[in-house]
This record gives sequence, C-alpha cells and structure tokens, in this order.
Amino acid sequence: MILIYFVFCHVLRTLLIHCKDSFNIIASVTNFIVNKKGNIVYLDQHVDREQNIFFMRIEFEFDEINFSPENFKLNFKNKLAQKFNMMWRLFTSEEKPKMGLFVSKYDHCLYDLLGRYNSKELNLEISFIVSNHTDLKHIAEKFNIPFYHIPVTKDTKAIAEEKQLELLSKYKVDFIVLARYMQIITNKIISEYPYNIINIHHSFLPAFVGAKPYHSAFKRGVKIIGATSHYVTEELDAGPIIAQDVAHVSHTFAIEDLIAKGRDLEKIVLSNAVKLHADRKVK
Amino acid sequence: MILIYFVFCHVLRTLLIHCKDSFNIIASVTNFIVNKKGNIVYLDQHVDREQNIFFMRIEFEFDEINFSPENFKLNFKNKLAQKFNMMWRLFTSEEKPKMGLFVSKYDHCLYDLLGRYNSKELNLEISFIVSNHTDLKHIAEKFNIPFYHIPVTKDTKAIAEEKQLELLSKYKVDFIVLARYMQIITNKIISEYPYNIINIHHSFLPAFVGAKPYHSAFKRGVKIIGATSHYVTEELDAGPIIAQDVAHVSHTFAIEDLIAKGRDLEKIVLSNAVKLHADRKVK
Amino acid sequence: MILIYFVFCHVLRTLLIHCKDSFNIIASVTNFIVNKKGNIVYLDQHVDREQNIFFMRIEFEFDEINFSPENFKLNFKNKLAQKFNMMWRLFTSEEKPKMGLFVSKYDHCLYDLLGRYNSKELNLEISFIVSNHTDLKHIAEKFNIPFYHIPVTKDTKAIAEEKQLELLSKYKVDFIVLARYMQIITNKIISEYPYNIINIHHSFLPAFVGAKPYHSAFKRGVKIIGATSHYVTEELDAGPIIAQDVAHVSHTFAIEDLIAKGRDLEKIVLSNAVKLHADRKVK
Amino acid sequence: MILIYFVFCHVLRTLLIHCKDSFNIIASVTNFIVNKKGNIVYLDQHVDREQNIFFMRIEFEFDEINFSPENFKLNFKNKLAQKFNMMWRLFTSEEKPKMGLFVSKYDHCLYDLLGRYNSKELNLEISFIVSNHTDLKHIAEKFNIPFYHIPVTKDTKAIAEEKQLELLSKYKVDFIVLARYMQIITNKIISEYPYNIINIHHSFLPAFVGAKPYHSAFKRGVKIIGATSHYVTEELDAGPIIAQDVAHVSHTFAIEDLIAKGRDLEKIVLSNAVKLHADRKVK
Repeated sequence: MILIYFVFCHVLRTLLIHCKDSFNIIASVTNFIVNKKGNIVYLDQHVDREQNIFFMRIEFEFDEINFSPENFKLNFKNKLAQKFNMMWRLFTSEEKPKMGLFVSKYDHCLYDLLGRYNSKELNLEISFIVSNHTDLKHIAEKFNIPFYHIPVTKDTKAIAEEKQLELLSKYKVDFIVLARYMQIITNKIISEYPYNIINIHHSFLPAFVGAKPYHSAFKRGVKIIGATSHYVTEELDAGPIIAQDVAHVSHTFAIEDLIAKGRDLEKIVLSNAVKLHADRKVK
Repeated sequence: MILIYFVFCHVLRTLLIHCKDSFNIIASVTNFIVNKKGNIVYLDQHVDREQNIFFMRIEFEFDEINFSPENFKLNFKNKLAQKFNMMWRLFTSEEKPKMGLFVSKYDHCLYDLLGRYNSKELNLEISFIVSNHTDLKHIAEKFNIPFYHIPVTKDTKAIAEEKQLELLSKYKVDFIVLARYMQIITNKIISEYPYNIINIHHSFLPAFVGAKPYHSAFKRGVKIIGATSHYVTEELDAGPIIAQDVAHVSHTFAIEDLIAKGRDLEKIVLSNAVKLHADRKVK
Repeated sequence: MILIYFVFCHVLRTLLIHCKDSFNIIASVTNFIVNKKGNIVYLDQHVDREQNIFFMRIEFEFDEINFSPENFKLNFKNKLAQKFNMMWRLFTSEEKPKMGLFVSKYDHCLYDLLGRYNSKELNLEISFIVSNHTDLKHIAEKFNIPFYHIPVTKDTKAIAEEKQLELLSKYKVDFIVLARYMQIITNKIISEYPYNIINIHHSFLPAFVGAKPYHSAFKRGVKIIGATSHYVTEELDAGPIIAQDVAHVSHTFAIEDLIAKGRDLEKIVLSNAVKLHADRKVK
Repeated sequence: MILIYFVFCHVLRTLLIHCKDSFNIIASVTNFIVNKKGNIVYLDQHVDREQNIFFMRIEFEFDEINFSPENFKLNFKNKLAQKFNMMWRLFTSEEKPKMGLFVSKYDHCLYDLLGRYNSKELNLEISFIVSNHTDLKHIAEKFNIPFYHIPVTKDTKAIAEEKQLELLSKYKVDFIVLARYMQIITNKIISEYPYNIINIHHSFLPAFVGAKPYHSAFKRGVKIIGATSHYVTEELDAGPIIAQDVAHVSHTFAIEDLIAKGRDLEKIVLSNAVKLHADRKVK
C-alpha cells in the first residue's frame, strides 16, 4: 500500500525563469522536462518587447520516487540556464516563505493581514512584527506574533536599520512587507532584499503631490481613488507594480470618507500583493 | 381648452447658486420661491468645507401664466443675491447651449460625440467643428456639421486664436469642447470662456510623465488606466474635474491594447462630461 | 468662561424624514427649523418618482442652552409630521446604535468588522456575537466581545430564534448584522427589526443560481464578480440594497481565486453597509 | 535586394487548439514546430479543470520562402491532431473575417462599431447591415455599407431567417453580430454559425427579470449596472462570455440616467467582444 502511495505521489513543482529573449527558449525548456519524464501541467510566458526580456512560469510533476531535485537543478543549470543566461528558481508549493512585517501607527493593513493569516489564507509564515512605535503592540499580542520596538529618529536611522537587519537575519526572513510603515527604507536593506520588499500607497487619478494629497484631490473634485502595491527599489515609489485597485468616489464624500475608502483599498491591495508574492505568482 | 392648457403648463426652471457659506442660505432661498407660489421639486446643496463655499441647485415650477422670469430675476437679485454676494444663473431645460468642437487628427471622441448628437442624446447644438488639420473633414461632412480648417504653427498661433475667437463669436458659442485637440489653448480664449472649455486626457495610476507615458506605464506593469475630463483653466491640466473613469488592464495587454483601452475611456468620459455640462449638472 | 463655552456649544442634530411626496415639504421643514433659530448645515432630498415617496436628510445646529429636544419633537410632530403623514427620526451623532452580530463558520467578515471596531472606525457598539457553531469563539475572545453559542437544527430552529430574541432584548440591540450567518432568518425576528437586519451575499454578472454558483460562473467564463449588502425583508434576498461592489476576474483565475476575491468583496461591502447604517446615511 | 527581403519576410501565424487534456500536449506541439524550423514567439495555454479541456494559442514565424501552409496543415493533421483528437485552426493576421451586422432600432452600438470600422480599428470587413426596421438605414448609407430590410413578424419569422441565410451565404459571412437586434435567433441560423454569433445585453447586480428590469433595479436601489457580450447558443443568453464591464450608479441617477449608462456599457463591451473575436483572441 505504501509503495502504491509513493508511485502515485506527485508533487507540483514550479520553475520560474527570466532571461534575454532568444530563439526557441520555450521548446528547449519543455523538451528538457519531457526528456526527464516530467508532465507539464501549466505554462505561462510573455515577452517584454520593450526590454526584450522573456518570462516563463512552468509547472510540472514527476514520478517522485525516481526524481531528484538536486540532479534536476544541476542538469538544468548546465544544459539550459548557462546557454540562455537565465535567472531561475525551482520550488514546490509546500515551502512557506518567511515574512517580516514593518508597521508604524496605522492598523488597517495589519488587521487585514493578521485576519487572513489566522484563517490560513496566506501561504507564508509571519516571523515577527517590527515598529518604530508601540501603538500596535497590543494587536501583535492578540495574534501571538513576536513584536519588536525599534524607534527611528533622524539621528538613529542607521543604527535602527542595523537592528532591523539583525532581526531579519536571526529569523531567516525571505521577504519584507511595509504595512504603512511610513519610513523610507534605505539601500542598506533594499540591496539585501531585491524584489523582496513590498510597499503600499494610495494615489489619485490624476496624481496629486505634496503634503496633503487628499485635500488637493478633494478640492479639485477627484472622482477616483486608488492604491498601488509595488516592490521597493532604490528609486522612490518607482518599483514594479504587483497589485492595484480603484474605487469611485463622488462630490458627496467628505475628506474623511475619501480617507476611509483609501484605507479599504490599501489593505485589500496590500494583502493581495503579499499573497501573489508568497505564491510566486507576481507577473 | 387652450386656457386650461396654459393654466397647467409648468416649465421646470433651475437655479444654480454658489457663494460664501453663511447662516441659513437654504431657508432664505426656499422661502423666496415659496412666497412667490413656486413648487420646489428638487434641491441639492453641499458645502466645500475647505474653501467655505456653498453650492446649491434648486428646481421649481411656477404657474406659468402669472410668472415673469424678468421679475423673478430682478427680485432675486435685489433681495437675495446681493445680501449673500451670490454667483447665480436661472435657466429652463428648453434652452440648448451652443457648442464649438475643436479636433485635430484623432477621431474616436469625434465619432462618439456625433453619434450621440445624431441620436438626440445630447441636449445641445453643435455649431461647428474646427481643426488645425483636414484629416477629419470627411466626418464633419458625413454628419453635416460646418467644418473650418485653421492651421496652427508656432508663428501663427496668435493669428489662429484670433480666427477661432471670430468663429466662436459669429456662432454665439456658449462652450468649447477640446476633443483631443492636442494644442494648448492660451489665456486669450480661456478668459473669454471661464469654466466653459472642456478637455479630456488619459492618465495612469500612479501618474507617468514625459513624452511616452504609455510606454513607461507598460514597463512598470501598470494595472489601471484612466481618463479625466476637466475644465480648462490657466494652470495646465489643473482645472475642476467633471468626469472620470478607469479600466483594469493586465500583463497580457500589449502597448497597443493599452492605447485602445485609453481611447475607449477618453470618448465615454468626454461625452459624459459634455452631457453633464450641457444639462448644467456638473457638481 | 464656562458660560461662553456653553453659549457656543453646538450639537449636530440630524432629522430623517420620508413620506408621500406633496407640495412644498422642503420649504415647510426648513421654515420650521429657521423659526426655532436653528442653523441648517446640510440638506439632501430626493423623490422616488416611481413610488412617489419623498426622502429628506437635514442636519442643523441649535444654540444648545435654549434647545429642548423634547419640545422640538412635540412641535414637529404636531405641526408637520401629522400634516404630511411623515415617518421621521431625530438623533445626534453621539448616540451609538447597539449591534448584534450573527456568524457561522466563515471568519473573513467577522475579522474585518472587529478590526474596524477596535480602530474606532465604526460609530456603534457590538453588544454580542452569536453563532450556531463554536468555530469562531476564539476570535470573539481575542477581541473581548461576549460570545453565545445557540445551535440551530431543523427541529430546534423555532426555539433557537426565541433564544436569539431574548439576547437581542436583554442587550437592547438596535440592529442585527448577518456576517455570513448562512441561516435563513424567519419573520419572527424580521418583524421585530424592520429595515434593521443587514445581510451580505456575493453574486455574478449575470446571475447564476443553484448549489454551486462559483462553478457555473467559472464554466461560463464570467469576468465580473460582485457582492451586495441589503436589508433583510420577508422576501428572500429582495430587500433594499445598502452597498455593492464588483471586481474584475479573468480566465487565469482558478475557482479558488474567484472564491477568495468573493470574500474580499463581501467583507468590504458588508463593513461599508454597517457603517452607513450606523451613521444613518443609507440612501 | 528583393531576395533579401523575402529571406527575412516572416509572417506571424497563429495556431488555435482545443482538445481533451492529456499527457504532454504542450511539448508535442512545440516540438512539432521547432522540428520544422519555426520560431515560437508566443504561447498561451490553460486547462479547464472542470471539463478537462485543454486550450492553446501558439504564435510562430517561419522562413517564408521554404514554408508551405498546405504541407504544414497536412503534417499537423496526421501527426498531432489525430493523435490528440484536436479541434484546431491555423491562420495569419492578414486574413480579415467577414461580418454580418444585425440591428433593429437602437443605434448606439451601430454608431460605435461603424466609427471604429472607419478608423481601421477593427481587423474585419462589414459585409452588410440587415434590420427588421428601416430606422437605421440612413446610418448605413452615411457609412456606405449595404443595407437590407427584412421585416420579421411572428408569421414570417421562418421566411425571414431563410432570407437572412441567403444574404449570409451570398456574402460568404464568417460571423454575425447582433447589435441590439432584439429578436431571438433560432437554431436554423445558430447551427450554421456555432460560436460565431455575438450578442450583447445589459444586466444588473444582482439580476432582475421581467419586462422592466431597469425599473425593478431602480426601485431596489441597485448600485451597479453591467453589460455582457456572449456567443449565442441554443440555450437563451447562456453561451460563453466574451467580454463584460460594469459601472457604478447611485441613488441620484434617474431611470433615464441608468438607461444611458447601460447604453455606454453595451456599445463598448460589444465592440470589444467583436474585436477579440475578429483577432481570434477570445479566451
């Protein structure tokens, strides 16, 4: 019986690839998997024509008793990855990435993430919550997540980031979520977590800059409000977009209604972005 | 029989008011109308708390044989408008405003406006179409609207605007619609048509500036595209917003799909803005 | 100084009215308030032309030391409410309505409501949580809300509703929220809480009926999913709509993605409906 | 020079496949193309897990001087299509499908399709317009499209459909668009054009049935209105969905505003569905 179980035990494995586009990458990869007796169950690819970059997500199953991930990786590296100069990762859906959660005083994104986390909706592990304030400590305690208070001032910013890096390293964190953290992350942390720091911010259509964007938007009669979640890169608020959404507002909305609607958007968009990232499904 | 007809003939009249907010404007206006035996059928007001400006739209009917608009206006001016320092207008739904239509080479907004115009969906009169090119002349002819070709170059811009003003004056135009006109209107025309020039432009969430916004948006993975119609004021693209809409796009959209979706949004939003303006329903 | 404070202490009072439409209701109400030296700060009205019903929301302030709510109510009743046969309510923004929360096994709406409740976003008091199961008891405890377990079977339904009514009465509950309660409420409770029971359900465009709507929708290639919050009336799922929202989905969504998106919509729409109801702002 | 031109002249060819899902279809197809020296530029596939059907869209280029489409088709049929029992089509982007346009009295969808057609936005040929009324004849003439008037009554419906089939056959029409045709198409025509008849209808969230859905929706306070374009199958309004969109409405919308917004949605959604179909991009 146990033998039969193993014979039919198929683990879904996912291979993510990106590289400079070139002739017949798709067929080369599919051939590689078929020659090793793998069954391809899903394939999604697209080419960024502007930058000429090829992206591919391919999911497949192997007869597990004869499959060695180490062997597969070695072969793939030597036969394909080097030839096409690929960036690539192989993983199974069982591996839960570890997440470090940065917050400040706003609690709406935190509640939304923790509610989903408790409901097992998120395929990840929240290692700790860190904040420059203690306002949200009681929420971390409610949900039994370790909470660290690392104050940040202009003078102590460098030291604070050192402490944050120690925490991230101690917990072997895979990615960071800024849930309305309200502080700019410097390159010291960004360079350690490329495309692994997720931020959220609201915005308007069209954009309003300055200290009080809600007030400017309200004054001009803005009818659409949005939220954008993106990866943090060195250029402020210019990293690749992971998820977005909008809501329609009207002249009957007071400023506090606009702000409340902005919070609703922020929490849903951030949680969806975190989910996409944890499932490695960001496009 | 004719007498009875007149006795019951009620014309719906609309009064638009805005002024500095102060004590009991609403009751003063409603009292004024009731004392003259008018029946209020609709009242909408709101206060811009940031700027402390009161806005009101009130619709009412009078027994027409005893009603004199001139008398009403004179009384209203002396008893109320002066006291509260009001900006106000009185009109009936029968009066169709005259519109001057400025186009260049893009035809999607033009087709949409003319289709609706032919279907009697728009409560207005299109007096003429003017363009700096002749590409869209055949469409004007198809729909039997006078077409004028006024070329614009850097050197002839001032002269061209003179000619445009002559046309606007000759046709007694009430408001101007820039249906992808692609030229900046100077203060010479803006000052003649305050809050009576309607423009349309697409945008992204968040905003992208520069010469090729679609390419920048595409590259960053933008998921939402929008269009905004607003009044033209001296400050470029900063006038009050009349109508907006958005559409969701995905990583499977090519740049030309983004641009096509942008056109769909632009034409619907512009036509809706024109309709709101012609019906004097802009908030 | 204390005297001066009282002189300027203005409480915002709101009057909600609906009645058969008739001549000059607006002016009669505004006059009534002005004659009592009240300052009207907001007025919103509309007429349901199909059913000829007039709705009005009017907000005003009085010099509080001379104002007696009892006097006002008595006068309003005798002079206006009887004349126009009005349904009406007067309240201040300080009065927090008491809410009874019914849940079953799904937790997403519960987490969202409790998160907002803890953040003081909701102007109400959650008196208790009642469920036919114990699965969500731990969440009620986390947030320190009394939790009652009243099992419901086909045979015990009548008894269960008696127990629910006792709870509602004991806590003097003003309105009920069914946060994915998954049980049909009978007329025994509905008749005690007319237009005071709020329900939420997802739906598709167009609608799918039967036991597995998500599967039917998925099979047909549905591109839009929605959620609707409405008042519970005797006719199943046919009461007045309070709030709605939609999301765009695509052929790349698996059934579980559709269901997850449905949960996001449900929680936001229900929480927004609860907020509108508690603020007495349902249109 | 001409020779060089031909050597580099690559025509983009698209292969659409669907069949029962089975082991390694993807790799078999990609291998087939690579072995013939084709360059795959795009591949999109998904599996309908409910019905176990595999769908694939693959785009590739060949060195055209050595490529024979007839040869390719014969080989593909013998080596792959038979083995996997595939439904498949091969085409190039140059082939414009011929469209027959059915209308009645509403003109908004007609104007939108003709405007785009004139702007070369649609990759298709409109062979003729047919209507059971003559109201829209003047529009067909404006745009120089042959117009046929085939009246339909209960008694003459069978004869009318015969005449319609003659027209469709005479013009060698590939697909039919019902642009608010308002008549039920019987199986006589449907069976000749399986998945080649496109319909549009508005709907609400949730759905309202009966003769006056706008009035029912309005009365219940509906906040979202939508439009759905789908293929016509024997079961009324139950065919696969091609495109959908929604708009938010509010209690300030009168019934005529709802209807106007419904028209805007219908025309955009229908035109987008027609475009997707003509580009063979329906999912």
